[in-house]
Amino acid sequence: MRLGIYGYGNLGRFAEANAKLFEDVELVGVFTRRNVKDVKTLGTPVYPAEDVLSFKDKIDVLFIAGGSANDLPVMTPQLAKDFNVIDSFDNHSMMVEHVSAVNESAKQSGHLALVAAGWDPGVFSLERMIFDSFLPNGKSYTFWGRGVSQGHSNAIRRIEGVKDARQYTNPRPEALETVRSGKMEDMNAQSMHTRECYVVAEDGADKTEIERKIKTMPGYFEGYETTVNFISQEELDKNHSGLPHGGFVMRNGQGNSFTHRLEFALNLGSNPEFTSSVILAYSRALFRLYKEGVRGCITVADVAPKYLCREEGMDLIHKYI
Amino acid sequence: MRLGIYGYGNLGRFAEANAKLFEDVELVGVFTRRNVKDVKTLGTPVYPAEDVLSFKDKIDVLFIAGGSANDLPVMTPQLAKDFNVIDSFDNHSMMVEHVSAVNESAKQSGHLALVAAGWDPGVFSLERMIFDSFLPNGKSYTFWGRGVSQGHSNAIRRIEGVKDARQYTNPRPEALETVRSGKMEDMNAQSMHTRECYVVAEDGADKTEIERKIKTMPGYFEGYETTVNFISQEELDKNHSGLPHGGFVMRNGQGNSFTHRLEFALNLGSNPEFTSSVILAYSRALFRLYKEGVRGCITVADVAPKYLCREEGMDLIHKYI
Repeated sequence: MRLGIYGYGNLGRFAEANAKLFEDVELVGVFTRRNVKDVKTLGTPVYPAEDVLSFKDKIDVLFIAGGSANDLPVMTPQLAKDFNVIDSFDNHSMMVEHVSAVNESAKQSGHLALVAAGWDPGVFSLERMIFDSFLPNGKSYTFWGRGVSQGHSNAIRRIEGVKDARQYTNPRPEALETVRSGKMEDMNAQSMHTRECYVVAEDGADKTEIERKIKTMPGYFEGYETTVNFISQEELDKNHSGLPHGGFVMRNGQGNSFTHRLEFALNLGSNPEFTSSVILAYSRALFRLYKEGVRGCITVADVAPKYLCREEGMDLIHKYI
Repeated sequence: MRLGIYGYGNLGRFAEANAKLFEDVELVGVFTRRNVKDVKTLGTPVYPAEDVLSFKDKIDVLFIAGGSANDLPVMTPQLAKDFNVIDSFDNHSMMVEHVSAVNESAKQSGHLALVAAGWDPGVFSLERMIFDSFLPNGKSYTFWGRGVSQGHSNAIRRIEGVKDARQYTNPRPEALETVRSGKMEDMNAQSMHTRECYVVAEDGADKTEIERKIKTMPGYFEGYETTVNFISQEELDKNHSGLPHGGFVMRNGQGNSFTHRLEFALNLGSNPEFTSSVILAYSRALFRLYKEGVRGCITVADVAPKYLCREEGMDLIHKYI
């Protein structure tokens, strides 16, 4: 499977590095909107983004490694006119619109697109689907963390007097315990998580005011138990430069006579590295489904497990079933 | 979806009871090899097994609730000649043969069969497949328990002087810890589990000899850390009459630069009740795939998550992705 990477931020770089773990993936090129000379890859050739159309016959799957806010809503429908494409669109509230737009484009051009590949949406979506179907009468919970939320870190950085910041989302241990005890209480994001901030203030900044602005920020911190720690840039760089993440999907279900509990957990050394690995696995699936004649826009909901695996046929049954 | 239940042991009974949680499932009948008058259902009509052929046009999916040792290798290929069938065949070492035999029969008759639905094989198979595909460079572990192993309980009951017995398989906490710490050590079933036996001895039986025979039984207990507790029939009936089970699938993976850990856990109040629920969800998927034109024998590897869910189309995307 010949893969192109469109965009070379965190996800694009990790996809390039991790591709060597997928023996059936051949890297064709990295396509960038930056100056080609400024992009140093691990060895994959770099081309200007506008040249991608000349690779129409050389790329089986194009991974669009762009941002969900501005890039993907435009890029994915556009590139689906000429390529089989995969993205990691992660804006849940715009998902139906995104799928619809990409589906129209890919159906018209006779390509296959898979959107929202990653771990949430993605792997977590898959687990939520199967958990609900096996235990129809029950309650599901999604916990995020412990891990770095880049959106929340950026929100802190926009506050006046803040030089740099890193925000960790943590599951509340007592909320995890409540779910694991089998209870089916109503919970919301605020009662399930705490927010832990590490902030580098500019010289002379009003730290009390920064802390107040963080803790009362609507949509990000308001309503959460939030702790703010002021540290030096050196300390931030030394202890908080990684992007670890994790999370849990759980379901407590009541059968006719008994209760059952399902739990999925991931613990990631690096959020973008694991996400890129999920994207590579789903790229493999996407290309197989394309070869079987599937067209339009699909998600992880449409992909049978066998399409993700290297093994096929009876080898797969022997190894996994 | 009109469901027939062929066999009325533990699994058949739980499938009948749990079907009310699946609003799209209509129970047509229970088919039994026993005397029809001796089979008391929760309300589903009971018919002799040999009458099942007269229901060819009244049943969309037939659940064959038989044993893997003797029933299913014969029944599933046989009944796939006239029905879409689902079973919970769980003999891993005979899986390829079973799939091949059922596939030939179902392909010839133009039906669809789904075999090995349950939690292992079944849900665990699914998790092992996706874990391996997301983290190609790594090591997977399957732990069983804490739960009752009916095979091991029966093996103890066959020892002279044993009146009744119940065996629990337990994951070793230190083995779970080793995997959760990120290590990728080689482990085997013996180093991952302990076996805990509750035995009712007949009056005057040689308990020392019974304990020796249990602990040295090849293929069942030899090599395991095994504890044997002699108790009264009353105590066994009071404290060990349920069939709880559980287990874990875990994978530690090494990406290009970081390590990642995936874990799936289930905790079941009743092994057969949950298994029946998984079978009902896969029966729904089986019938949908049949209506889409799929024929032959499939397994959980072939079923995309969307086929398991009640929701469809954009409702499904909105809810889960």
